[in-house]
Amino acid sequence: MNNFVFQNPTRLIFGKGTIATLATEIPTDKKILMTYGGGSIKANGVYDQVKDALKNHFVVEFAGIEPNPTYETLIKAVDIVKEQKIDFLLAVGGGSVIDGTKFIAAAVAYNGDPWDLLVDQDKIVDALPLASVLTLPATGSEMNGNAVISKKTTHEKLAFGSSKTYPVFSILDPEVTYSLPKRQITNGIVDTFIHVCEQYLTFPSQAMVQDRFAEGILSTLTELGEKIVDDSTNYNQMSNFMYSATIALNGFISMGVPQDWATHSIGHELTALHGLDHAVTLAIVQPSLWRVMRDEKKAKLLQYGERVWNITQGTEEERVDAIINATENFYRSVGMKTKLSEHGIGNESFDTIVGRFTQRGWMLGENRSITPDKIREILNGCL
Amino acid sequence: MNNFVFQNPTRLIFGKGTIATLATEIPTDKKILMTYGGGSIKANGVYDQVKDALKNHFVVEFAGIEPNPTYETLIKAVDIVKEQKIDFLLAVGGGSVIDGTKFIAAAVAYNGDPWDLLVDQDKIVDALPLASVLTLPATGSEMNGNAVISKKTTHEKLAFGSSKTYPVFSILDPEVTYSLPKRQITNGIVDTFIHVCEQYLTFPSQAMVQDRFAEGILSTLTELGEKIVDDSTNYNQMSNFMYSATIALNGFISMGVPQDWATHSIGHELTALHGLDHAVTLAIVQPSLWRVMRDEKKAKLLQYGERVWNITQGTEEERVDAIINATENFYRSVGMKTKLSEHGIGNESFDTIVGRFTQRGWMLGENRSITPDKIREILNGCL
Repeated sequence: MNNFVFQNPTRLIFGKGTIATLATEIPTDKKILMTYGGGSIKANGVYDQVKDALKNHFVVEFAGIEPNPTYETLIKAVDIVKEQKIDFLLAVGGGSVIDGTKFIAAAVAYNGDPWDLLVDQDKIVDALPLASVLTLPATGSEMNGNAVISKKTTHEKLAFGSSKTYPVFSILDPEVTYSLPKRQITNGIVDTFIHVCEQYLTFPSQAMVQDRFAEGILSTLTELGEKIVDDSTNYNQMSNFMYSATIALNGFISMGVPQDWATHSIGHELTALHGLDHAVTLAIVQPSLWRVMRDEKKAKLLQYGERVWNITQGTEEERVDAIINATENFYRSVGMKTKLSEHGIGNESFDTIVGRFTQRGWMLGENRSITPDKIREILNGCL
Repeated sequence: MNNFVFQNPTRLIFGKGTIATLATEIPTDKKILMTYGGGSIKANGVYDQVKDALKNHFVVEFAGIEPNPTYETLIKAVDIVKEQKIDFLLAVGGGSVIDGTKFIAAAVAYNGDPWDLLVDQDKIVDALPLASVLTLPATGSEMNGNAVISKKTTHEKLAFGSSKTYPVFSILDPEVTYSLPKRQITNGIVDTFIHVCEQYLTFPSQAMVQDRFAEGILSTLTELGEKIVDDSTNYNQMSNFMYSATIALNGFISMGVPQDWATHSIGHELTALHGLDHAVTLAIVQPSLWRVMRDEKKAKLLQYGERVWNITQGTEEERVDAIINATENFYRSVGMKTKLSEHGIGNESFDTIVGRFTQRGWMLGENRSITPDKIREILNGCL
């Protein structure tokens, strides 16, 4: 096991009826900016629940944070925070709203162009306190310090992670997920699954408990997947899904283990250049990446195949094939496409993507062995 | 899944050479009381490492915190803290030292007889900051707010848990465990295993991930058990053991699930009245408790048997028998006795123990269905 430091200060408030606790979780002397996206929280009743809980608080609203939240939108909120002397941010929404709100929190405390914080996260030395009411299980943003922000003008999408931008608390009421569109549930299942894989499917690292935890989340998702796509109104099932998504990316499974994240890095480019949903890009990139990197990942693929898919028969190569296929089939079983061509996309952006990684000098993957040439090979496998 | 609130602020610093980080983890303007037990930290070099890291700090020492730390000893430290205006406590040791230091931290901030805090933990409204350097994986005290304290004069042993008494940080260097006596390793394995069971082996509660996590720790311990009893100097094995003990009782596996803790409650009485090691009492009580409560626990026993022991053959009753026997045999395989008679103890304290639970009006177990009569039946099964 590698040396590590773990700390996660977020207070997780989970269960039916917990949005009402906002009334006491935020001191009444705080001036709150309530951030959200489009109109879904008004349609599903979450907006009313939040406003009702905060009826004795001073609340300014900032709506319109988009999926893949943009610098251009968020910078407007930074101005509002400064003008209105806001001192608490409350994100009500999914990962995009929470990520965007983290950026606002850090940007307010930074003197300079806040895009700097995406280029060099060490520049985040302070942030406004923020909290969240989660409406969409997927990104895990509700219990970590990470955010991914896009810049429209340059079609860039970059991430930061900071100890300053953990939510003070996050409220997870599984009932708010009942009205989610199928596409969001499919995305959430795949996003969660691949978050776990990025922290697990690398090489054996003698972290026995962390492996078992990762496998436990993956097994839970394979058990739940089709059921929750078919019916998103079963409380216990949606509880387990919502809990899985949070635990998948709050640091519990990543202590002292190697991590990959190449699927995310490549996927971010496909979102930036083609506008594909984040999870959609992951489901396309990961199977191809595993096929290209199968030798380096073989030992862990075999462990994963045995423990999650009960694949134990055949030669190692046959099992690896079966394991990658089982994973891709799982994504398809929850309604996810796994090829660029299914989205009408060809190889038109590949030169740009490979060029960007070449220019940045990034080597991807747990061994930093995924060169720009390998990235092209992976992209070719996505067609 | 039940509603829950989870928050664990402790900073976990894990790995080789991490004791040196004390130099920067504690501000140099703090006046530290360094607490420890007997001489083992001087024999194994931990004392020297701590003192070296803190050579620029003001440090007062308080030695002699005993296994099953006593009110009578700890109250002396409370006086020292007040006299010397100590404002930071550093526990260097195992669970007893850390538990005792939590009591000191809370007692210093309390006006009145600190034993009150054991009787009514709501009286803990403040505490001095404390941290730990862990030397013995077992109790999980390094990453929770719980403590168990004994009173010599009355042969009582009571527990408290408070959000105020989480360590600010805990340092876990697996190398410090290399010199542990076999008895301590055996105790630590069993203690950790039964901590998990208390939070898991109850009734099915639709907490899929929490179940998988609990089973993951149990499987890890069954894989490691005999190996680390035979050789306590393998870094990876001791890392996994040390990590398991912390994760078993830091709240990760208990979110939204029913809990038992009857084995602990009955075990504490056996320690208080007979001086048996804590883990020794658990290994004696748990198999008997499971046999007496087998009907209420049947569904979860069968799940545990299948996933941890791969016991899937035979009738349900035969499997339950086999599963309880496998568990008891596991304790024996790591060198633990599982009967009172093996310690030369008969039924002489049973009336006292049953009388105490009757007087307190406590009903034990996840269903609060373990009456004083059931406790007597469980104790009879311990002979």
